[in-house]
This record gives sequence, structure tokens and C-alpha cells, in this order.
Amino acid sequence: MIIIGEKINGSIPSVAEAIKNRDEAFIRDLAVRQAQYGADYIDICAGTSPSVERDTLKWLMSVVQDAVDIPLSIDSADPKAIVDVLPHAKRPGLINSASDEGGKCEIIFPVIAAGKWNCIALTCDNNGIPTDPDVKYRVAQTLMEKAQKYGIAPERIFIDPLVNSIATVPHAVTSFLEATRNIKAAFPDVRITSGLSNISFGMPIRKSINLTFLVLAMSAGMDSAIMDPTSIDIRTALYAAEMLLGLDEYCVEFLDAYREGIIGPPKQ
Amino acid sequence: MIIIGEKINGSIPSVAEAIKNRDEAFIRDLAVRQAQYGADYIDICAGTSPSVERDTLKWLMSVVQDAVDIPLSIDSADPKAIVDVLPHAKRPGLINSASDEGGKCEIIFPVIAAGKWNCIALTCDNNGIPTDPDVKYRVAQTLMEKAQKYGIAPERIFIDPLVNSIATVPHAVTSFLEATRNIKAAFPDVRITSGLSNISFGMPIRKSINLTFLVLAMSAGMDSAIMDPTSIDIRTALYAAEMLLGLDEYCVEFLDAYREGIIGPPKQ
Repeated sequence: MIIIGEKINGSIPSVAEAIKNRDEAFIRDLAVRQAQYGADYIDICAGTSPSVERDTLKWLMSVVQDAVDIPLSIDSADPKAIVDVLPHAKRPGLINSASDEGGKCEIIFPVIAAGKWNCIALTCDNNGIPTDPDVKYRVAQTLMEKAQKYGIAPERIFIDPLVNSIATVPHAVTSFLEATRNIKAAFPDVRITSGLSNISFGMPIRKSINLTFLVLAMSAGMDSAIMDPTSIDIRTALYAAEMLLGLDEYCVEFLDAYREGIIGPPKQ
Repeated sequence: MIIIGEKINGSIPSVAEAIKNRDEAFIRDLAVRQAQYGADYIDICAGTSPSVERDTLKWLMSVVQDAVDIPLSIDSADPKAIVDVLPHAKRPGLINSASDEGGKCEIIFPVIAAGKWNCIALTCDNNGIPTDPDVKYRVAQTLMEKAQKYGIAPERIFIDPLVNSIATVPHAVTSFLEATRNIKAAFPDVRITSGLSNISFGMPIRKSINLTFLVLAMSAGMDSAIMDPTSIDIRTALYAAEMLLGLDEYCVEFLDAYREGIIGPPKQ
């Protein structure tokens, strides 16, 4: 599993406050703790108004790159802002995200093709976020065809089939799972990723729902997640699912993680 | 999900002690708490020597039937002992278990056919417990053919594809999941059940592993489990998986269970 650490996001009130006050120690701590618990990428999202987004991203990039030696995931709804700040990265990371909506992938894909960055591509287009698994699949297919035209290798694309909230779309997960299986079958080298928290929006005991979604999504072939690696409950579910799905031969990773205190029994 | 409460089992030291001392209050409490948290059947297993097994089962049946109004699951490796104690049941329940080993199903199936009891049938035969999903499937097919010969409807059979321990069989779960999907595809009316704890034998943080196995097995079509309904962590995983797999429309069961305190956040 490729873990994209989600905690440095300006839409979280404590992070917004740290951004406002340029609180380096707060941001640095979030980066270090996510790295410590196995993040492969550290996501940074400004969550500020467009006028200051680039400056905020550059500040976050500087603080995080000074704190940890892990590639960044540059997270913005504005593909031009992402492209503008890329030169400030010490090394290639992940662009979060492209999609087939509003020409976003036409901005991002040429940049990817010309360099070494990877990219999350969301299965949405000008018709919005589909709930039907066949539509999710068709948008993924379009995205992969466009990536191929630019000469981008499939393993550099992380498709996010965009899970809806279970509170509003009763078949949100079954649809996500079917789309994931079909995308993986057609494009075996592509990565499948997803945030874990959308599924439980508007529901109680969200972490229990998110954990269960993680395990189900992994069983369908999801091999990346945008998640909180500092949560022992989430890490434990992830290691257990990898082991049970045959991705951790002789339970070596699970047992090592247990001995090192990286995973453990359920905690409040 | 059909829940078979597993707690009254003489192989558990505290239950063995209660059996030895004929401690009615202890057994009654286990029955009441499992019923309170949604057990559809209360399993009773003597775990005593063959010479006293029938007497032990009869005593347990009497105590449990006096405490709760829920059908029993009569659990013994000796099919003749099960058949002998059945007349002491107030109403039909579940026989745990038949298999294609040593003529067990030839003893159990005629009894099932002649009455209203349901039956767990294990996918093992005289060659032992298979680890290969195709062999699990073939044994299930043989069991279903034999059940049909006796005129037993498929929905009265709970096939247990027998998960091995992940510590000894690296593909234990993937094999179980494949067998479950294939059995469900061929016999859609049959139930699939499993104990949750075998998978984690010899491993640390067993409950976390068992929970993850439950979610994965449900995604493959398992619709019953032999489990501890008094564990809030297991109940929460079960309700979350049912909701996410589209078996709880509009999240009604999940939200009701949350409001009633039946499910909740992870606890130590």
C-alpha cells in the first residue's frame, strides 16, 4: 500500500490556524509524525483563498521539505496553482489531482509527461462525480487514454474512483468496489487510491466506518490510500488486511509492525 | 448476518469450570448476554470426555433454554451425541456440525431431512481439511449433492469453508474467499458461515485480525458467523460491513444500533 498522509490540510481548523500564524513547529510535527508511521507521500493542501494559495503552498512545501525527506503530494483544486509551485519541490512527488473536468488533465498531463511526477486522476468530468460504477469506469478509461496520448506510463497514474458518502448514496461502496475491480482488470499497472473519510460524512463513529471501507477497498484491489497514518487503528486494519489478502508472506510485516508498536489492539 | 453465539464452549477454561461445578448462573449469564446482543443461535459445546458429553449437553440445553428463547446450536465432533440429545431441545435449531468425514453427514442428514433442524456442514472429508479453494468447493459440492438426495433444501445448510490459520497457511483467507464466492455462485440459497478466531491462531492482537477477516469474508458473500456477539468491536465491524456492502438500506440498522449503544468507537 502506498500511503498518502492527509494531515497537512488547511480545511482542518487546527492546520488553518497554523497556516495563518505561519506556525512552522506545528506543520513540522505533522510531517514528522506521518513520516514516522510510514507515509510514502506527505499531502499538502492550502485550503486558503485563491489569492494566497500559491504562497501558502510554497511555505508549506518549504517547512515540510525541511522536516522530512519524503516526496510531497501537492493538493489543489486549481491545476495551474499546482503547476506554478512544482519548481519549489526538492524532488518529484505526486500531483493531487487531475480529472476529466474543466480541462484539468490537459493542464496536468503535459507537465507529468515532461518530468518525473506521478499524478492522482479523479473519475469525474463535466457531468460531475458519477455514482454509477460503469460511468466511473468509463471516465477512468478516458483519463488513461489521454495519459497514453501524452506517453505517460500507467504506473504513474493513481486513479481515484471517488467514493460517495454512504449517508447519501446507499450503493456508494459496492459501486466503488466494482469500478475498482474493473479498472484494475483493464489497467493492471495503474494504482487505485481513495480518501478514507468521504464514505462516513454525516455519520457517527466515522473511524469505524472508514476502517471497514479501507479493508473492503483493499480486497477489490485498492493499493493506495489518502489517510491518517498516525492512527494506530487505521494502521492495524491496513496491516491486517495486507496480511490476510496474501500481500505479506509469512506475516513478516504484520509481526514486525506489532513488535515495533506500529500496530496494536483497538484503542479509544 | 446470522449470528451463532460461540461463548458457551467447554474448551474455554472459565466455561469448563462452570460445567464442572454445574454453575447455572454463569452459563445463564452467557446465554442472556449473547441473546441481548443479537445472537440468532446460542452454540453449546460440552468440551468434556465422551463418557459425560451427552449429560453435559443436556444440562447446558436445559440451563440455556430456561434462560433465553433462542434456538440452540448443538456443537459436537460426535454426530451420534448430537442426534441423541436433540429430543431435549424445546424447538428446532442448528446442528454443528456435519461433514463428509467418517460418514458424519450420513448420520446427520437423515435426521435433518426428517425434521426442522438446520445444519452446519464443514468442507472436510477423509483427506482432512483442504487448504486449496477448488478442493473446498468440491467437498461443498459433494455435501450439497448428498443433502439433495435426502431432500434437504439448500437454505437449511450452512457451509463452513474452514479457514486455516494465517500463521501456518499464507493463502488461508484468499482461499476461503475464493471458495466462498464459488459456493455462493453455484448454490445461491446456501448459507456460508465460519468461526472468526481460527484465522488468528498463534498470532498477536487476534481480535483485530478476526475483525478484518469478518469484513473480507462478508464481502465474498459469507452471511453467518460463529462469533462473540458480546464484543462491541466485532458488532461494530459487522454492522459497518453490512451497511457498506449495501445490505442496510439508508443505514437504518447501523444508526439504530449506534443510538442503542450496540455499536460504538474502538475500545481497549
